[in-house]
Amino acid sequence: MITLHHCPQTRSMRVLWLLEELEVDFQVVPYPFDKSLRAPSFLSLSPAGRVPALEMYGETYFESIAIMQILCERFPERGLGREPRDLDRPDWLVWLNFAETITQHSVALTQQHVALYDDSMRSRTVMKLEAARLEKCYAAIENRLSTPVENRDHLLTSGFSAADIAVGQAVYLARFFAKTDEYPELSAWYDRITDRPAFRKALPPKEAGVYSRDFYPAWDE
Amino acid sequence: MITLHHCPQTRSMRVLWLLEELEVDFQVVPYPFDKSLRAPSFLSLSPAGRVPALEMYGETYFESIAIMQILCERFPERGLGREPRDLDRPDWLVWLNFAETITQHSVALTQQHVALYDDSMRSRTVMKLEAARLEKCYAAIENRLSTPVENRDHLLTSGFSAADIAVGQAVYLARFFAKTDEYPELSAWYDRITDRPAFRKALPPKEAGVYSRDFYPAWDE
Repeated sequence: MITLHHCPQTRSMRVLWLLEELEVDFQVVPYPFDKSLRAPSFLSLSPAGRVPALEMYGETYFESIAIMQILCERFPERGLGREPRDLDRPDWLVWLNFAETITQHSVALTQQHVALYDDSMRSRTVMKLEAARLEKCYAAIENRLSTPVENRDHLLTSGFSAADIAVGQAVYLARFFAKTDEYPELSAWYDRITDRPAFRKALPPKEAGVYSRDFYPAWDE
Repeated sequence: MITLHHCPQTRSMRVLWLLEELEVDFQVVPYPFDKSLRAPSFLSLSPAGRVPALEMYGETYFESIAIMQILCERFPERGLGREPRDLDRPDWLVWLNFAETITQHSVALTQQHVALYDDSMRSRTVMKLEAARLEKCYAAIENRLSTPVENRDHLLTSGFSAADIAVGQAVYLARFFAKTDEYPELSAWYDRITDRPAFRKALPPKEAGVYSRDFYPAWDE
């Protein structure tokens, strides 16, 4: 059996989306976004107290990008990975990991806007800096999707892959803090991949999740 | 030819260490830790303006963990990767990626202590939180290196790998913000892997690098 330990609207959402795309049997153990991730029972699954953790055939894994690679290698028939010696293998690895570069800024902003409950704990400089960095990440994706010859439908020339899932979910989180309106290719790609049934199944149920608002503007001076 | 675009004491140091371990021919293009990473010429190598970027045989790659995987797959004879179907493959992926979980906290602390030059920009709550999170990461490594039967010499049972390089370099950065004294297995492992000639070659020259101090204590209230 495959079991995903999951918090809505966190990195574990990218693993949930991938599992839905893979069409394998799995179950989800949901957690609230709070100190339950520090319980010894959860730390035995993920030693730094972070989702996701994945149990598969008696083994336990953590780190979302590692888990996505493990799943793509375990279920190659769905074609969401790119195996060694595939022409797109290096770019698949690069863009899969770029999801974490994006997410680090979203996590810093989640801490500032959601976790720190008092203004004195927060830094308006950090909030503005990190939102600007998300826009730099958007520009990198926009550039990737716009080639001199034509626009790409997906991050890889060879089509939809786990890299779109990882980066797509990172953009889903980033959109709480930085608007995508000025990035037409990114917006079209985001609409395209989030129209997939597997993405919609990975969305949180109403009222669950980390974010109670649709958008958190950087603190204006 | 292989060319590493590198800033001392940043994530690109883990790629430099790996290249030294692989004993391949390569050249280093050094950058200061400043706005030169925002220049269009650098953005064409790494679109979010971050080191490392690696040029190899006419292709360019970014994202340190992706580059480490690409290099391990390109030079399998040194045995620093673990190929698909290797028993240690999943753990290799997990620990390789855990380097980023550690580094996110160090990067947040570098921003607080080094990049933000005025107290009003900083948050003492963030500084204390992030330093505490580094200690949680140390505890995860300590636990990994201590098994019920015996202690592991390296993160994987099968011996030294790129996972030790990635996590080792992450701990090198983390040690500027959180002391390792209370983690005996981590300390012994860190001494063991940083005694390697390849690590010493990856250290910055005197006076270069991001950190002018040996240690940055969390801001006491």
